[in-house]
Amino acid sequence: MLFVFIYCGGKIVNMKKILSLAILSLLFAFMPQKKIKIIFFGDSITQAGAQPGGFITRIDSMCKIEGLSANYDFAGAGISGNKVYDLYLRMDTDVLMKNPDVVIIYIGVNDVWHKVSSGTGTDPDKFERFYNAIIKKLKDRNIKIILCTSAVIGEKTDFTNQQDGDMNQYSNIIRDIAAKNNLPLVDLRKAFLEYDLKNNPDNKDRGILTTDRVHLNARGNQLVADEMWKAIKGL
Amino acid sequence: MLFVFIYCGGKIVNMKKILSLAILSLLFAFMPQKKIKIIFFGDSITQAGAQPGGFITRIDSMCKIEGLSANYDFAGAGISGNKVYDLYLRMDTDVLMKNPDVVIIYIGVNDVWHKVSSGTGTDPDKFERFYNAIIKKLKDRNIKIILCTSAVIGEKTDFTNQQDGDMNQYSNIIRDIAAKNNLPLVDLRKAFLEYDLKNNPDNKDRGILTTDRVHLNARGNQLVADEMWKAIKGL
Amino acid sequence: MLFVFIYCGGKIVNMKKILSLAILSLLFAFMPQKKIKIIFFGDSITQAGAQPGGFITRIDSMCKIEGLSANYDFAGAGISGNKVYDLYLRMDTDVLMKNPDVVIIYIGVNDVWHKVSSGTGTDPDKFERFYNAIIKKLKDRNIKIILCTSAVIGEKTDFTNQQDGDMNQYSNIIRDIAAKNNLPLVDLRKAFLEYDLKNNPDNKDRGILTTDRVHLNARGNQLVADEMWKAIKGL
Amino acid sequence: MLFVFIYCGGKIVNMKKILSLAILSLLFAFMPQKKIKIIFFGDSITQAGAQPGGFITRIDSMCKIEGLSANYDFAGAGISGNKVYDLYLRMDTDVLMKNPDVVIIYIGVNDVWHKVSSGTGTDPDKFERFYNAIIKKLKDRNIKIILCTSAVIGEKTDFTNQQDGDMNQYSNIIRDIAAKNNLPLVDLRKAFLEYDLKNNPDNKDRGILTTDRVHLNARGNQLVADEMWKAIKGL
Repeated sequence: MLFVFIYCGGKIVNMKKILSLAILSLLFAFMPQKKIKIIFFGDSITQAGAQPGGFITRIDSMCKIEGLSANYDFAGAGISGNKVYDLYLRMDTDVLMKNPDVVIIYIGVNDVWHKVSSGTGTDPDKFERFYNAIIKKLKDRNIKIILCTSAVIGEKTDFTNQQDGDMNQYSNIIRDIAAKNNLPLVDLRKAFLEYDLKNNPDNKDRGILTTDRVHLNARGNQLVADEMWKAIKGL
Repeated sequence: MLFVFIYCGGKIVNMKKILSLAILSLLFAFMPQKKIKIIFFGDSITQAGAQPGGFITRIDSMCKIEGLSANYDFAGAGISGNKVYDLYLRMDTDVLMKNPDVVIIYIGVNDVWHKVSSGTGTDPDKFERFYNAIIKKLKDRNIKIILCTSAVIGEKTDFTNQQDGDMNQYSNIIRDIAAKNNLPLVDLRKAFLEYDLKNNPDNKDRGILTTDRVHLNARGNQLVADEMWKAIKGL
Repeated sequence: MLFVFIYCGGKIVNMKKILSLAILSLLFAFMPQKKIKIIFFGDSITQAGAQPGGFITRIDSMCKIEGLSANYDFAGAGISGNKVYDLYLRMDTDVLMKNPDVVIIYIGVNDVWHKVSSGTGTDPDKFERFYNAIIKKLKDRNIKIILCTSAVIGEKTDFTNQQDGDMNQYSNIIRDIAAKNNLPLVDLRKAFLEYDLKNNPDNKDRGILTTDRVHLNARGNQLVADEMWKAIKGL
Repeated sequence: MLFVFIYCGGKIVNMKKILSLAILSLLFAFMPQKKIKIIFFGDSITQAGAQPGGFITRIDSMCKIEGLSANYDFAGAGISGNKVYDLYLRMDTDVLMKNPDVVIIYIGVNDVWHKVSSGTGTDPDKFERFYNAIIKKLKDRNIKIILCTSAVIGEKTDFTNQQDGDMNQYSNIIRDIAAKNNLPLVDLRKAFLEYDLKNNPDNKDRGILTTDRVHLNARGNQLVADEMWKAIKGL
């Protein structure tokens, strides 16, 4: 066995120790680093978000382009037709058991929409109660949370979309929950209204950011991706 | 018989003619003048408007105070729960047979409200069709028409009343009909929103101009009376 | 001039008279006879009824096969989405101006259905009022009327179709109007329920007489055609 | 020490043993016996059931009269406006933490009713899913369960109550859950229909077993008490 002593600035350094540290560093660099696991928890909009062209797929692409793909792991947990209480019912199996670091909650459009389309919307007080119950379960496990307001049911910009009043009310509920819990908020309703005010001069009810007044087209998916990606990097 | 000739500014005036005219004028002043008959055609808000404290009663009082009661005859034709098609169905017996000179149409709140409260509101295209059918029947008889937008379902000023979107849409339909037919419009929705923005700092849903989000309190009746009375005198 | 007397069973018959009658009969057979004009007045089901395979087309075919096409003239006046008040609004132009002898009213499914699908159904008291207003206008012109109950919204036979209660109530309203006015009734709801009880052992909600719980397939159109054709011939 | 041997029917019995058993029995009789704790879990009907005259109060009285009050402990857990998902949300705090032996689930009327009254009913598939989730949580803790069908929204007996179709469908869902899980069922809908068929000859929509088509009058509370008490004793 060879011992090398180097005299370095008045200090005798054990070369063996240095080598060990160097090898360890090298090993660590090649070891798979723990990624931040992010689950997108929502309805059909989130379900479509995980498809090609969807906002989750776009966030993943943006992440790769920015060389950050080593840091993040994205997973969609959206199911068509879901309302806030459906998220609560399935959050154990679909979210908690997957041990996410971050959950992005994007829910509410069906809670309002189904009032009119099938008589099965959600009362505002119950919307708030279930939303808070979801927040509580995530906070109890120290999971980081990002909230989103629901974007639109109709893109008309003169405040004549049938359910604009309710959409504003339910968005306010989400904004209040975010403020009270000191949670980051992606205010999609605000972002969509601002975009539509600039880009919908003909006051159309669809076709700017949505295909059918509710579900996102390419531009809509990109807008959601941009807003969410900002919020994720800001955590 | 005496003939008096007066020389007046180079003209000889026949005094007999002057006297005749004077007497005629005198007679005319004491003769019962034809009053302008005004029918208020609407729903429960108009029905209550004919009660003590209601807006029709208030218009009648204002009319008397201004010494114009000889000119106008006011009659209420409001029935609780009425929508636009109910007005169309009963307009022959309740309006046309009473030979009004002016009809003030104040309808629409139930067409929106009942969508949510009993599933029996009116689709916007049909609202417009029946409204136009009423206008046509009145115009065919040379009856003057004043239109009103529906005021409010909820007085919150942050655009979160559940049916604000629909209320705006149906108000726009009425505004368009007024414009296309060149008819005077009492824009109650606009007037109520402006009043609430100034006088509802706590964002309450009732109690400023309404008792129950829809039906008028004393201030609400006075505001409607003021706006309508202006429109009536402006005919 | 030749007179031929034929001794026939103790009676002398004037041959000239016989010839005259024969010629008259011949002329009459070739003369255009006044046809009975029948208008089918309703919604999308009636609109589809005038298409190939629809119940009006089938009635027309049955009429020809039975050699009665000289007697009847059939015309559809169905418009998609119509409720009872829509019929009332358009009956002058679409029915009365066409001078029908008979009007078959087949309305009501949207008055119930739209309560759930868009919040714009018709309250039962108003359904009855508009129905009676239509009847009155037709009776005033001595037009014969055949009423029909609305068939189904869902074909399940265990009384679990969502709107069965309302369908029964509105059918009862129509049955009462028929009874009070002594008018023939084609009780389609009864006929459909009986058919489904026999032919829908799997309790399906569609596919027996309808394509989509409401609109008629070939069997449904034939059933309606059979029932109506009986009622028409029974006038 | 005294040993007494008694010859009894060919058997020698140890008197000491008998005395010990007698004393134990005596002790046991005075010892507080573990009562069966029964929680009634539901909506406003159950909330009122715990009031004087309510069905829970009546069951408690019947229990005392039958000398069984030592065996049972009854507690109401009804909250006005509750639907199936509200029960799920609050079952940990309001039911499980109270360690019941038996839970009687009586829910569903608002899940149907609110479709029409406020557009916030529950879709049938989600009704079933939440109902099953409640059952699972109770079974996991070996809590006995009694299910109830929802009674009525309207007492008319000719199948014309507006929501009869839905009431039948949701009752079938509950019946199926009971059958699949081999759970006792109190079929209130069946019991109410049978009672009304006998006692509502005028086809009234309320006043036989309910005050307002939904909430129970004295007779209604007694009927529910009778049916539930039978099921409780049958456990």
